Order: sequence, then structure tokens, then C-alpha cells
Amino acid sequence: MASAGAADRFEVCFLPAGLRGDAARGTTLRDAARALGLEIESLCGGRASCGKCQVRVLECDGAEHGLHSRAEHVSELCDAERQARAAGRLGSLDRFSCQARVEGELVVYVPDASRVGRPIVRKHASERECTLAPAIHKYFVELEPANIGEARGDWDRLRDELCGRFGLDAALSVDLFALRSLAEVLRGERGRLTVTVWRGRQAIRFESGFSERAVGLAVDLGTTTLGALLCDLNSGEVVAQASAHNPQIRWGEDIMNRIASAKPPGQLAVMQQAVADAIGELAHDATLAAAATPEDVVELVVVGNTVMHHILLGLDVQSLGVVPFSPAVSHSLDVKARDLGIPVLPSANVHLLPIEAGFVGADNVAAVLAAAPHASDELTLLIDIGTNGELVLGNRQRLLSASCPTGPALEGANIRFGMRAARGAIEKIRVDPVNHEVRFRTIGAVGWSDRLPAMEIGARGLCGSAVLEAVAELFRAGLIDRSGRLYAEQPCRRLRQGANGMWEFVIAWAEQTAIGQDITLTQGDVRAIQLAKAALYAGSQMLLGRFGAERPDRVLLAGAFGSVIDLERALAIGLFPDCGLGNVAAVGNAAGDGARMALLSVAAREEAEVLARRVEYVELSTARGFNDAFVAATQLPHAEDRFPSTEARWSPGIAAR
Amino acid sequence: MASAGAADRFEVCFLPAGLRGDAARGTTLRDAARALGLEIESLCGGRASCGKCQVRVLECDGAEHGLHSRAEHVSELCDAERQARAAGRLGSLDRFSCQARVEGELVVYVPDASRVGRPIVRKHASERECTLAPAIHKYFVELEPANIGEARGDWDRLRDELCGRFGLDAALSVDLFALRSLAEVLRGERGRLTVTVWRGRQAIRFESGFSERAVGLAVDLGTTTLGALLCDLNSGEVVAQASAHNPQIRWGEDIMNRIASAKPPGQLAVMQQAVADAIGELAHDATLAAAATPEDVVELVVVGNTVMHHILLGLDVQSLGVVPFSPAVSHSLDVKARDLGIPVLPSANVHLLPIEAGFVGADNVAAVLAAAPHASDELTLLIDIGTNGELVLGNRQRLLSASCPTGPALEGANIRFGMRAARGAIEKIRVDPVNHEVRFRTIGAVGWSDRLPAMEIGARGLCGSAVLEAVAELFRAGLIDRSGRLYAEQPCRRLRQGANGMWEFVIAWAEQTAIGQDITLTQGDVRAIQLAKAALYAGSQMLLGRFGAERPDRVLLAGAFGSVIDLERALAIGLFPDCGLGNVAAVGNAAGDGARMALLSVAAREEAEVLARRVEYVELSTARGFNDAFVAATQLPHAEDRFPSTEARWSPGIAAR
Repeated sequence: MASAGAADRFEVCFLPAGLRGDAARGTTLRDAARALGLEIESLCGGRASCGKCQVRVLECDGAEHGLHSRAEHVSELCDAERQARAAGRLGSLDRFSCQARVEGELVVYVPDASRVGRPIVRKHASERECTLAPAIHKYFVELEPANIGEARGDWDRLRDELCGRFGLDAALSVDLFALRSLAEVLRGERGRLTVTVWRGRQAIRFESGFSERAVGLAVDLGTTTLGALLCDLNSGEVVAQASAHNPQIRWGEDIMNRIASAKPPGQLAVMQQAVADAIGELAHDATLAAAATPEDVVELVVVGNTVMHHILLGLDVQSLGVVPFSPAVSHSLDVKARDLGIPVLPSANVHLLPIEAGFVGADNVAAVLAAAPHASDELTLLIDIGTNGELVLGNRQRLLSASCPTGPALEGANIRFGMRAARGAIEKIRVDPVNHEVRFRTIGAVGWSDRLPAMEIGARGLCGSAVLEAVAELFRAGLIDRSGRLYAEQPCRRLRQGANGMWEFVIAWAEQTAIGQDITLTQGDVRAIQLAKAALYAGSQMLLGRFGAERPDRVLLAGAFGSVIDLERALAIGLFPDCGLGNVAAVGNAAGDGARMALLSVAAREEAEVLARRVEYVELSTARGFNDAFVAATQLPHAEDRFPSTEARWSPGIAAR
Repeated sequence: MASAGAADRFEVCFLPAGLRGDAARGTTLRDAARALGLEIESLCGGRASCGKCQVRVLECDGAEHGLHSRAEHVSELCDAERQARAAGRLGSLDRFSCQARVEGELVVYVPDASRVGRPIVRKHASERECTLAPAIHKYFVELEPANIGEARGDWDRLRDELCGRFGLDAALSVDLFALRSLAEVLRGERGRLTVTVWRGRQAIRFESGFSERAVGLAVDLGTTTLGALLCDLNSGEVVAQASAHNPQIRWGEDIMNRIASAKPPGQLAVMQQAVADAIGELAHDATLAAAATPEDVVELVVVGNTVMHHILLGLDVQSLGVVPFSPAVSHSLDVKARDLGIPVLPSANVHLLPIEAGFVGADNVAAVLAAAPHASDELTLLIDIGTNGELVLGNRQRLLSASCPTGPALEGANIRFGMRAARGAIEKIRVDPVNHEVRFRTIGAVGWSDRLPAMEIGARGLCGSAVLEAVAELFRAGLIDRSGRLYAEQPCRRLRQGANGMWEFVIAWAEQTAIGQDITLTQGDVRAIQLAKAALYAGSQMLLGRFGAERPDRVLLAGAFGSVIDLERALAIGLFPDCGLGNVAAVGNAAGDGARMALLSVAAREEAEVLARRVEYVELSTARGFNDAFVAATQLPHAEDRFPSTEARWSPGIAAR
């Protein structure tokens, strides 16, 4: 057994990384780890007061790891450790690595929570890991009271302490709004305070005493819906969520209406404040759920399409509505929350991801960041369906993007009975291919329409995914031909001409609705879906042609619509190029996921900046061949090409009936 | 005569600097100058559109400067030069140095207006020159319209142009509030615009077309009075001035009252906005006088004592009222005008000079910057008299500072008939040493009181300088003894006991006043002046002792009071150490001059930062020996020491009578 004796250096091994090397007697475990490239957390700069740097000294007899390791091979407990152990905050073999010193061979286990730069918890949408590296860092400081005759101000003394103890850059500045609180914070616990520093450059918050928690908000600013994830910036976890309708809806459902509404003098500022307030409400709701306050939100990342991005910033959007669709700014921005009027910590930074090009906005950059086509050798087609369909096609070598003029049909707009995905919206539809009978599910109802009394169904309209399903089901049932015409070879009681002479198919009878009239899918609705799918399909074809590929290796569907549509039916009507159902996946709210990654990692922000510049934007409206491809794609696919293989799985409900 | 012929290089001499060197044929005159270290102005980056780079080609026959120089030795006029010459904007031998190219030996005269870094016009107060190097610079750009498919936003294209053409750092950012105007500015003159850049780091303003003018505001934020100088940032000239009372006066005349008034919750913010609005009004008044608008103010420098500085920033001032008088921040700050609520260009930067120590504020730093004791080998005592007397003693080697508790007597406060220097204030007083008769001058009256009918005098009270003069005159007339006691060996009709039993001397009879009662100087008033002068004198003695000097080589009096007091009388009552009247000078509003220097020169700001840290602050209240020195200094000097030498000059009016 190797006794420490009078030896000067001892071998130390850090698990689970397995890093090992010599350390001089008396070296703290934290310094020994750092010398091997392993950074251990510390908020207090080695004053034994934050407890963030805990490690465990393992007992080993030399058989494991080739080292003899025991508790006696480190220095004795300091007072702070004794108190922490008595209070149950420090396990029996655990030590503060800033205090425990090497006095013999050691095997030390460093838990994830004590490591700097640990991986962010994996998200369902992405196969990538991302290292936790938020823009903010907290430092605990005990500042001595000023002496009489001290010429430095409080902040100057604090800055000297931060720079001296934590190695921060001497150019460290302080946000005015944070500075306003400093005197009171210093009085609070007699100079014991926690400083939140943004990107090592600016102190943005002071809190009395020791305060470890830091939260940030990732905001997905959609044309219709706002979603927010409140994230713990220490762990990367989502601690609360909130969502709301975009209050700008009162100025129009789609972005062209928003642009028009923002034109009269003063109106842009009103719309800007409305969305800023809405983000403030999300921050309020989410922090309330997490036992925090909006003032605790120290960092925000916002993604949105170019129009939403510009309106939030108060930037003129008129040029976004006309050729050449120039945004005011395309690179990422950091602005103060107060400058946007968002009621969170006034000195909090709001990071806006970059814009790719006119209509391909920061939300798409975020979706690419999360879905990561550029991290794979497979050729990926990423489709983000909203009012415009945004396409990205590419792999590790090259990325192309385009914006397809799908129109709002896939969101349920410009559809006779279209509506948002809210209570009463029909979301699933099945049509019996033999007798043409229909059953459907309504949001808020407890089961399929054929299992409920008519009065309990309460249908109000069709949401976007249901419109697409209806077209697919009617096509499969032979009630729509390849050109998109509604027709029946035999009489069908649900197929009729409406008051304006247009053919329509009844999905819900009046008695099944809460609106007192039949809910139908009209010939016009079918045409709108055809145009939308033709735009997406032709856009995809154009990108494939530009890339020099026949078909993608996989298709990823992002966004709310992409998450709820039936992938088989989408494929059946030719919404996107066929690459085999097994290679199609919905990746959920990829834009929101990307926003969260950017919130948790400055490296992800840098990656987004590079991505936005790397993506080659293809302007479809002027691209040769797009119109021909578009016209061709309005046709529905040959039914025999698609249906047989999936028939059995496709309609289990009907088959079972 | 040296013909240009086929030679490749020619000697070029630039006057008045006399720089000379070779330049290759075809080099522009501007590049040739730059190669010799002489920077010539350019707003347009060499596009022949700004006209800022004009130089004159001199005709020389080789006798002067050893060179043959003539108009034919440069390339022919370009179209822009021809137009400028036709329009009278370009003289017959003048050229745009970005266009004219070397084709032979040349002697070129570069006028001051075309030089980068020319000296600021000399001020009366200071013997120093300071190089014009404002924080902002304007750039004229002609931006091509965006092409369809252009992925970069407007700002990104503009930034690339700025960086490419003018060599600005690629990290150049843009202020959000400026960015909001960019789209409209670009539409204004089809991409021709002028960009204002702050410190080479951030674009803060966009203007359509070519715009050369840039103005900034230097603000002296006094406890009682605000003064502002509107400066042309291209020439350094003061183009307008404005002043106003500090609106915070309603919360107390002195800084201790202000501190107390700022204590109730919310009150600080109210006081903050009041002073921000007041600065906005000065900006309004000054820009109106200069045919500009507050939106044209692109940079501000504000100096003030520590309390005024903190209130403007919205910083807690309570700690400034108690030991150890800690300011929240002491180094200089740059904050956005909008964050202070000052109604000028929202993205304008407000620079606050550093604070030396608790009571020695940014105004004193500015005064030191302007009076520049550190630039001289002479030992200078700089006295800035306000509610506190601020002292700086030093020379090139060392600087000491102190704050003396003079009380407000020298500002006319806590004086029985004291008042501010406004209409009706007595500002000059003469007492006949023989018959003790008095004559005085009143602000707003057309002459001395003995030359006017009583009813046209309209006296209302005594301003600070008059109180000091009255004490000096009564001391000289033997009506005050060295201990400060008011007494007369023979009966004197003006010397009497007031209602409260206190002795007083009548300066103005009731009929000479607008207030209907006699204006007197009381025994209490004399004591207040004695205390003030004792504080200043003893403070000066302490600094001299600390410095190891007997007396200063010169005394400079700064501030409004320092400008109006009679230097001989101030010396006569021992307001400051005697160094001979010829070595005493009033330097006017040195703080305002320093603010202007900082506005016009970033180098001056850096100098101020160094100065503030270099000055050694001496805390008098705890300094050994200060109390003894203070008590001793309450005595008035031996009259015989001071009066005889100056008698003749001193009272010319009375002597002539």
C-alpha cells in the first residue's frame, strides 16, 4: 500500500471521465481537476460557500483504477464542510473540491452537477447533444465594507473583486438598471451578494446573499401562437411552459395582413407593444408556475418568422411585403428587454437568432439548429409548415432553403369551415371507402363521432390537419379524382351541390355540430389543399434538382401542423416527395427546440449565425421550371402507387367496424 | 525643371506640416498624405461626393521647398470636381485629394478643415490645446438596391459597405432605435445616406443623403444651475449655449436636502426625470438657436457633483449622506440617452466623467481636466467653490484633492439677506474707511447706488460674492476685528443691534430696496463667512502640508462664484493661502470647459479617467490637525499684512470721490 508519507506528488484519477495525472501535495481537488482539463463549477470562487463544487472521494484498495484511495488521503474537513455535513447538504464521502487538498493517491468521482459544460438533456426532436454554456454566469461575492477615504465606488470595488477572484475581464461593465439596485443589495446581507454576468462582459443583476438559480425564456413567436419554455440555466431543464395566442391576430391572420396593418403611422409601435406585453404575460405565467418572478428572467431567446421578428423589434415591415423582400437586418441581435418593452428583468438580454433571407426567418434557423440536417450525411428534407411552407434540403455538405407560397389552407384558413385547432375543431376524419360514411373526432369531445350522441359532438369546423385528412380520405374512397374533382360514380347522400352551385361533401350533419349547419368540404377547399401541396411538392422538387438528387433520404416535418397531421395521408396525397413512410418523422416544434438550444448555449448561437449564412436561399418565384413543376404537382398521385401498402394499418377503426 | 516624363515616383511635400516623401505616379494625394502619417478627412470614403478632402496644389518653381509644383502635375479634374468648381464649392487650385493623382513633383497645402485630428479652438480658461477627436464620426454611403435573392438584410449590406470602404471593425453593431429608421432613410434618397458611428463600434443614426453636421451637448449639472454648451463636433466650436435653474431646487437648496428628499420610495425616480427633462429643455433651447433639433444631438457629456451625478443616473444617494460616503460607481459611464429619459436622439450616448471620491465629483474631474494642474511644473491650487469647496493641489508629479465643508454661505445661503445671483441681488459693495458710507451695485440696475435715485436701485438681498466683499470692506474699514466681531470705536449710524439683539451693519436703507426694509450684514453672516473661509484655508493648508510645500505657486478659482468674486478682497480676508495677487486667477466655469473637452475628445475622456484615479483624496474630517488649523483660520489676517500694498488700486471709486 502506497503511503502518502513525505512524498510530494500523488496520482489522482477523476471519474467518470477517467482523467488521471499527478498532483502536488496540498493541491485542491478542484485545481487538480482543472490541471487535467476538467472544470468544476464554482459560484463563490473557492470560498467554500456555494457548495457547487462537490466531489466524492472513493474508497479503493488498488485493485480498481490501480490506486489506493481513501478519505484520509485528503485534508481534513473545513468548518464550512462540517456545517454542510451536519445540515445534510454534504454526503459522508463528499467534499468541497475547492477545500479538500491532495495528501495521497485518490480516485475522485465528479458528479454531472458539479461539472462545467455538461451536456444538455437530450430532446425528443433531435439526435444531437449540445453542451450547456449559457450566456449568463453567477458569481457569489463577499465584499468588505468601504473604508473611509476609499476612492472607488461600490461597483468599482465589486468589479475589482470579480476580476481578481474569478478572472473576469477588466473591461467588465455594469448595466445601469442593475447598478440602480446595488446599494440596496449591498445593504441586504452586509456585502454578501450574487452577481449575474452576461457573456463575461456586463453585470446585469445583483441579488443579496447567495443565489444560485437562474432562469431564461425561449420564445417561439408564431404568427398565430406564442410558445415559451422557461429553462433552468444551470441544469438546462425546462421548468415551466406557457403559450398564448398572438395578440396581433386582431390585425390580421396572416403576415401580409400584418404588414398592411403596420403601415399607418404609429400602428407599428402599437403592434410591437402588444406582442412585447404578450411575451411578458408568458414570462409571468411560466415563472409563477416555477415559483419565480418575471424579474428572475435574466436571458431570453426569441425566434419567429421575419415579419414577427421585425414587429417585435419595432422595425419597418413594409419592405418585407414587396420585391426584393429585404429585411432590415439579417444577422443575430442582442437587445435589452427594456428596449423592447418586455416586462422582465430590464437589463436582461434578448437574443434574436439570425434571419436567412426575406421570408425564411429566425424560426427556420432555429428549426435547422434543432433538426440539424447539417450534422448528418443523409440528405434531409425539413418541412416547416405554417402560412408559408419553409423548406430546407441538405446534409453535412450543403444546405438549400426555400419558402413555398402554400397559402394558409394547411392552417385551416381560406377553407369554408376552416378554423384554428381549438375546442370544437374536427381534427381526425375517416371515410368508409365502401359506403362513404364518415366518422370524426372533435377537439374537446371524448370519442369518435359514431360513438357519441349527436348532441355531445359539438363540431364547429375543420382544423388544418383535418382538411388534409378529408382530402386524403375522399381521394382514397374514390370521391376525388386525380385532378382533384369531387365526384361519385354512384349516388352519395353526402355529395351535393351547395347554394352557390359548388360541389361539396358533408362531413358533419347539422345535428352533430354546435353551429346548426352541415360542415362540408367544398370543391374550393380541395383546390386550396391542392395548391398548398403542389407548392410544397414543387418546391421540394426544385431544391432536389438544385442539389442534384432524386429524392431525400428522410423527411422531417416540423411545426404544430407537422406534429398533428397523419404522415401516411400526407404522403398519400403527395404533400412531399416519397422516401418511404419509415423515413418520415414529425419532429415537433423544432423552432422552439432550437430557441431553447440557443438559450442554453452560446455555441449554439454561433452555430446558428454560421448556419444562417451557409444556407443557400433559392427564390422560387423566379426559379426556372418552378411553375411547370407546380402545375404538374397539383395532380394527386396515382392511388395505386400509395394506398395498397398501407391500407391495413391505415384505417384500423373502419376495418374493425 | 524636372519633367514628369516616364518617371515612376515623384517627391511630394505637404504643407503646413512640411511632410515630404516619394509617391508612385497615380497615387491619390490623399493616399500619398496618409502614407506620410497625415490623415485627410473623408466622409464618403473616396467617392468624390463629400468634398471634405480638399487640398490646394501650390505653384512653385523649385526655389521654395526645392520642388517644381504646378497644376499640371496632378491628374485632370474629375466630373465631380468640375461640378464643384462650377458651383463655387472648389477653388481654382483646389482639388479633391481622393481624386487628384500624382503625376509630377508637388507641393500641396492641406487646410486645417481637411485634417483629421486638428486642434480644438483654444479656450480662455486653459493654456492647453486638445486635439479634436470626438466619439462620433459620420460616413457617407451610396448603397446599391438589394437584388432579389439577396440574403443579407439592409443593415448587413450597409455594414459590409462601411467595413469594406472605411475599414471599420467587422464587429460594428447597430443601435436598435437607429435601426428602426433605416428602411425609411434608405427610401429617402435611394440608398444615399449618412451613417453616424459611435467610437467605431456602433451605428447610432442614419440620415438620408449627405449630412455633414454633427452636434453634441456638454452639460454642467450644478446643484443650483444647469449649463449647456452645444458644440459642433466637426469644428469643436460652441454653436449655442443655454442655462436654467436645476428643477430639483424644489426638493432643497443643498445636496444634503436633496439626499433626504430622495429617500421616500419613488421620489428618486421623480427627481431623476425632472433633471432629465431639464437637460432636454436645454437641448431644445440650444438646438433651436443653432437651427437644429434635439434629435440632432448625437453625443452628450455630463459633469456634476456626486449627488447630481447619481440622481441623474437614478442611483441611490442615501449612502452619499453617511460615512464612508460611498458612491455607487466611480469610473466613467456610457449610457444611452433613452435610458436616462433625456429627450434627445434616443441612441445618443451620454458620457459621465468619473468621480474622484465621495464628495469630489465628476465636475471636479472636469475642472482639473480644463485647468490642468497636472500639465504644469508649478504647484497649483485649484479651488472650486460651491456648497462644498473642492480643492485640488498639485503639479505634474502629484495631485491631492479634498472637499471642504464650507457650508452654503459663499453661495448666499444661510445669510440673513442672502439670495442667488439674480435681479435685485447686490453684487458689489464699497465701504468708505473714513465715514463708513456705503455704495453698491445691484444686478439689473444701471449704475452704483450713489449715482441712482433711491427708487431705481431695487435691491433685494446679497449674493454670495457681495457677502464676502462686505466682510472684506468692513474689515478694512475697521468695523470688524480680526476675531470677526462687528464693532466701532466711534458711533456709526449703520452699525446697530437688531431686533434679536444681534449686531448688524446696514448695507442698503429700506428706501434703496424693493423689499421695504434695510438690507444688513449680521454678526451671524460674518461668522458664516469666517467658517467658510476657515474651511477653505485650513483645507488648503492640510493639502500643502501633505504635499510638503509652504505655499502654492498659483491659485486658480473656478466656478460661478470664483468668476465674480473680487480676488483682492478674497485674498484680503484669507480665503486661500497667499501667493501674490499676480498669481491668482479666475478660470471661469472650468467644469463646463472640461465637459466640453471630453465632448470633443475621447483622449480627454481617457485622461479624465486616469486623472480621477491619480488624484489622491484626502479626507479632511478625519485628518490629524485639520480641526486646529480650522480654528486658527477663523481669525482674519493681520490687516497690515495685506491692505497697504493694494489700497490705491483697491478703491478707485471712493478715492476719486
